[in-house]
Amino acid sequence: MLVVQKYGGTSVGSLERIQNVANKVAKNKDENKDLVVVVSAMSGETNKLIDYAHYFSKNPSPREMDLLLSSGERVTAALLAIALNEMGYKAIALTGRQAGITTDTTHTYARIKEIKTDRIKKEIEDGNIVIVAGFQGINDKGEITTLGRGGSDLSAVALAGALSADACEIYSDVDGVYTTDPRIEPKAKKLDFISYDEMLELSSLGAKVLQNRSVELAKKMGVKIIAKSTFSDNEGTIIADKKEGEDMEELLVSGVALDKNQARVSLRGVTDRPGIAAEIFEKLAQKNINVDMIIQNASKDGKTNLGFTIPQNQLLEAKKVIESFDHDLEGSDYDEWVAKVSVVGVGMKSHSGVAAVAFKALADNNINIEMISTSEIKISMIIDEKFGELAVRLLHEAYGLDK
Amino acid sequence: MLVVQKYGGTSVGSLERIQNVANKVAKNKDENKDLVVVVSAMSGETNKLIDYAHYFSKNPSPREMDLLLSSGERVTAALLAIALNEMGYKAIALTGRQAGITTDTTHTYARIKEIKTDRIKKEIEDGNIVIVAGFQGINDKGEITTLGRGGSDLSAVALAGALSADACEIYSDVDGVYTTDPRIEPKAKKLDFISYDEMLELSSLGAKVLQNRSVELAKKMGVKIIAKSTFSDNEGTIIADKKEGEDMEELLVSGVALDKNQARVSLRGVTDRPGIAAEIFEKLAQKNINVDMIIQNASKDGKTNLGFTIPQNQLLEAKKVIESFDHDLEGSDYDEWVAKVSVVGVGMKSHSGVAAVAFKALADNNINIEMISTSEIKISMIIDEKFGELAVRLLHEAYGLDK
Repeated sequence: MLVVQKYGGTSVGSLERIQNVANKVAKNKDENKDLVVVVSAMSGETNKLIDYAHYFSKNPSPREMDLLLSSGERVTAALLAIALNEMGYKAIALTGRQAGITTDTTHTYARIKEIKTDRIKKEIEDGNIVIVAGFQGINDKGEITTLGRGGSDLSAVALAGALSADACEIYSDVDGVYTTDPRIEPKAKKLDFISYDEMLELSSLGAKVLQNRSVELAKKMGVKIIAKSTFSDNEGTIIADKKEGEDMEELLVSGVALDKNQARVSLRGVTDRPGIAAEIFEKLAQKNINVDMIIQNASKDGKTNLGFTIPQNQLLEAKKVIESFDHDLEGSDYDEWVAKVSVVGVGMKSHSGVAAVAFKALADNNINIEMISTSEIKISMIIDEKFGELAVRLLHEAYGLDK
Repeated sequence: MLVVQKYGGTSVGSLERIQNVANKVAKNKDENKDLVVVVSAMSGETNKLIDYAHYFSKNPSPREMDLLLSSGERVTAALLAIALNEMGYKAIALTGRQAGITTDTTHTYARIKEIKTDRIKKEIEDGNIVIVAGFQGINDKGEITTLGRGGSDLSAVALAGALSADACEIYSDVDGVYTTDPRIEPKAKKLDFISYDEMLELSSLGAKVLQNRSVELAKKMGVKIIAKSTFSDNEGTIIADKKEGEDMEELLVSGVALDKNQARVSLRGVTDRPGIAAEIFEKLAQKNINVDMIIQNASKDGKTNLGFTIPQNQLLEAKKVIESFDHDLEGSDYDEWVAKVSVVGVGMKSHSGVAAVAFKALADNNINIEMISTSEIKISMIIDEKFGELAVRLLHEAYGLDK
């Protein structure tokens, strides 16, 4: 049995914690598993190096940043191998290059192109626990690249895929994926299982367990992810493909997410000429404003209403863009204090009336829904920000997630 | 004009100091020099990483240590390149591998085998200041190796040799090579020039400006070293080949060195059979005891006297070895409190009476010389440790080094 494990920055945040990880890895090895262990930099290290770079320059060269930042994971990898050796286990630490992780040439946010697994396979055959410095690879010019924030997860998933590992265990300081944020709803329950698609929706909606790129790659490569805690022996949450009919008591909804970093923009009486929406969104994109939900009402009298949400801190910038379209619209209004509450579940696909449950739960408590956007497995609603947490608890109960 | 510069750990010991180095490098670039700049890890970093490793193991795997320790120089290299870029200079940071430094497979104390200069030459042609992470290379298995303490000096000298650079400037916190340690003799003078051979003797005798391996390599490759201070604009000391007759007023003696970490062992009435000395020194070597000066008196009545010095902290260990030879000798005595004072100078070769000056200077002041050892360009004397500093000052004056 081959398992790829990944330990994040908090899990290796001190020498004591690295020893704790070594103990966990050793225990797994004792169970006769072949192990590839991907590690992050010790927590705080990457930010320290970024601060160092920013001492010299606001826009440091991405190539040099990659060389700089790749050092943190190497330190952790070497230390973990040393700790395992001392405990009597054969272990070897590999850099991204030595692990065969090749990427494109985009520095600081490279994409993995290929993993040449010869070296890792040889080391496993030699009986080694293979420790891999996460977050980094090498491009075909021999330059060190990094994969962006959350890059170590990506290294782990890609390695698991390339090695056809039985599972990719992602260790962090939370013990799995919850039906919602337990700090908002103490009755939140840890999920035993969640599908890739649901996980993708949840993480883009603000759940912080896994980054979207890693889940996308896992889905693409068919890698079973298990999200677990480094600091407990709890079972964790499996993230994998949901097979049709596999679960008779399939949940309608898997989770509820809240995103409070939202502002609403409403444009009234927009001239309904072809391309006007495209023009507006293009201008916003040029200013790097991330538009999230977009709603356009049916046209009436050659005029239409257009609504969308953006991150709160980009509202001022967005207002400037909108002003440049003054001649094309009757009026605009803005609401900085909105939140997006979302319900996610693959069960929605095959059940009618799922949305109605949400609308009723909020309406019964006099929470006004300003905007609605739905996909096959998700309903998102924009509401007054102050009702955000309450809405999460109401929806959590309405879908029986606390049961 | 191509110059290789090397900045040590103290010179890059903080972000402010890295900026200072960037300013110095930029100034050199403005003088139209092509530059390859080798950097050490920020002072304290390497020791911190060693402490980390020792938290887990007293004998960490050398391979993993190299992976661990090589990260420090990479951080400095990247930061210096970022600083230079910000100042408007083209600069690129290279790892040991990228700089083409290939070594043998001895981890933590690798020897440089070859430098493939294609990449560096290309970067110089492209107008880049090339920053190289010192202390590291790569072996032919693709493993990261390090060159041992002082390894960055070695990187710099080897690069200067391979690139046929006009000079290799070694920057540290002292501004050159002195006639003796200025803390002992305030009248010590900075030398404008010293030959490789003299420098080799001085550094093996305790002068800390440059390590022997670097000077040896410089001599072998004909690299002109200039030892300078990072913190001043003083001229520094040139270390190069002394050409015959080049200097009419050639100095008799270049420097006086003191090594207080010495203990003396005297063996009386050693059976004078072939191989006995070899046996004793072989046993000492097996215990990793570094024997320095060795003196054997002429044989008399089939017995001989043997004297040698060792580091003070190895005296107990040495006593144990000597005891195992009890049947081969009449007696042994030990003196933990001795010092070695040495006079170095290529001028000695062609001048008679040089040694007599030293002996007289010490005798006139009632300093007893316990052992003497001479080479073509060096006289070393073992004396009572408490007279060490006084002897340095007397010899410094006797050879007119303060003039």
